[in-house]
Amino acid sequence: MRLKRYDRDADHSYTFGVFPTLELLAWQPGQAREVLLHSQGERGAGIAQVRDRCRRAGVPVEVNDRLVERLAPKENVYAVGVFAKYAPRLATDRPHVVLVNPSDMGNLGTIIRTLRGFGLGDLALIRPAADIFDPRVVRASMGALFQLAFAYFDSFDAYRAAFPGHRLYPFMTDGATTLPDARFEATYALVFGGESSGLPPTYRQVGSSIRIPQTNAVDSLNLAVAVGIALYVVSQSAG
Amino acid sequence: MRLKRYDRDADHSYTFGVFPTLELLAWQPGQAREVLLHSQGERGAGIAQVRDRCRRAGVPVEVNDRLVERLAPKENVYAVGVFAKYAPRLATDRPHVVLVNPSDMGNLGTIIRTLRGFGLGDLALIRPAADIFDPRVVRASMGALFQLAFAYFDSFDAYRAAFPGHRLYPFMTDGATTLPDARFEATYALVFGGESSGLPPTYRQVGSSIRIPQTNAVDSLNLAVAVGIALYVVSQSAG
Repeated sequence: MRLKRYDRDADHSYTFGVFPTLELLAWQPGQAREVLLHSQGERGAGIAQVRDRCRRAGVPVEVNDRLVERLAPKENVYAVGVFAKYAPRLATDRPHVVLVNPSDMGNLGTIIRTLRGFGLGDLALIRPAADIFDPRVVRASMGALFQLAFAYFDSFDAYRAAFPGHRLYPFMTDGATTLPDARFEATYALVFGGESSGLPPTYRQVGSSIRIPQTNAVDSLNLAVAVGIALYVVSQSAG
Repeated sequence: MRLKRYDRDADHSYTFGVFPTLELLAWQPGQAREVLLHSQGERGAGIAQVRDRCRRAGVPVEVNDRLVERLAPKENVYAVGVFAKYAPRLATDRPHVVLVNPSDMGNLGTIIRTLRGFGLGDLALIRPAADIFDPRVVRASMGALFQLAFAYFDSFDAYRAAFPGHRLYPFMTDGATTLPDARFEATYALVFGGESSGLPPTYRQVGSSIRIPQTNAVDSLNLAVAVGIALYVVSQSAG
């Protein structure tokens, strides 16, 4: 197999950098096909750890400076994990976050990191949506992607049909209840719209819509910030 | 004056796109030197609004496709605001957010947008720090930069000396008080470290350190997410 720059249609993707590669080896060792190292990083403690985990997981290691430089989007990448894409399943009995048409790779990765930071592990994505295996998402997630169950759905209705037991809480700038007054019943799904226009008005009908109180100085909060605030509040109200 | 691609050392910067250009004209019309339009956007309602605001503010308008294409970092930019950089002053009697060595342009813009969304208007930046006038920051802020007072300081001590009346709340992953238990006394300053390593341990001594409760699944939350959660909580506790 000749490795090329990341392609959405390929059956594999990459981690760039020591930290996300260690996360891959820690959480999804079975998906790791090989790890490529750059000779300039050989003295770092991180690389020794990568080698150690590869040995224990039976993942081949190859030092190949030219290949690392060809695959990596920027300089000073010393480790590249090559991993097979996989399709996890969402849990029916755990809370979900649902992103409807998220388009920004950085936001998606940041949201994944935030989910794990607040103990959630299940993310539904409604198409069209950013490619969760894109290395930019993996990097923004700091490798937290490998701890996550996620699934794509062609429509929100398809998601609802698959998880009829989840109570839906769509977040909207004109939501009916303000976040501090909201009560989240298990098993809940927090639903957020995309970066450009949020959720369309019809989502007011699909559950208990929620508004994060904010001033009129800006149209809306950044998507990843809104998800972070929601997850913080839910984690506190559950405690 | 021959306009070139943005340069940190130049005395002017740019807004790219209709929305941030409208924000420039709404909040800092005196800083706007001129607005450049692309002929392909002429039919849009937004462009008519840009022209209207320019006329009322006495800002020259020029249709210049080649110049717009040369300055803009990507395609489909139909309006470019050219504005003189300026140096606002922080208020002594209002709360501050202090960012120590923020390096990510997107995070900085998102944080500015979040500040305004929660009614704050004063941001201190401790060098080395990202350039707040970089067009990537302006874009990520959605133009909220133009509603903001901000100032750079060479060190945290220089900031403290300038605002001795502010009570300091450094946010740290090992902070002494958890966020839900924190009480913020006016006039407060919320202090956050940079993306790569947060605040150094010495900041535990400079005020009442605060920890956002999170799992061990990730090292830390994204900086913009952490600031968003803090501002939400403070806005609620003040209400």
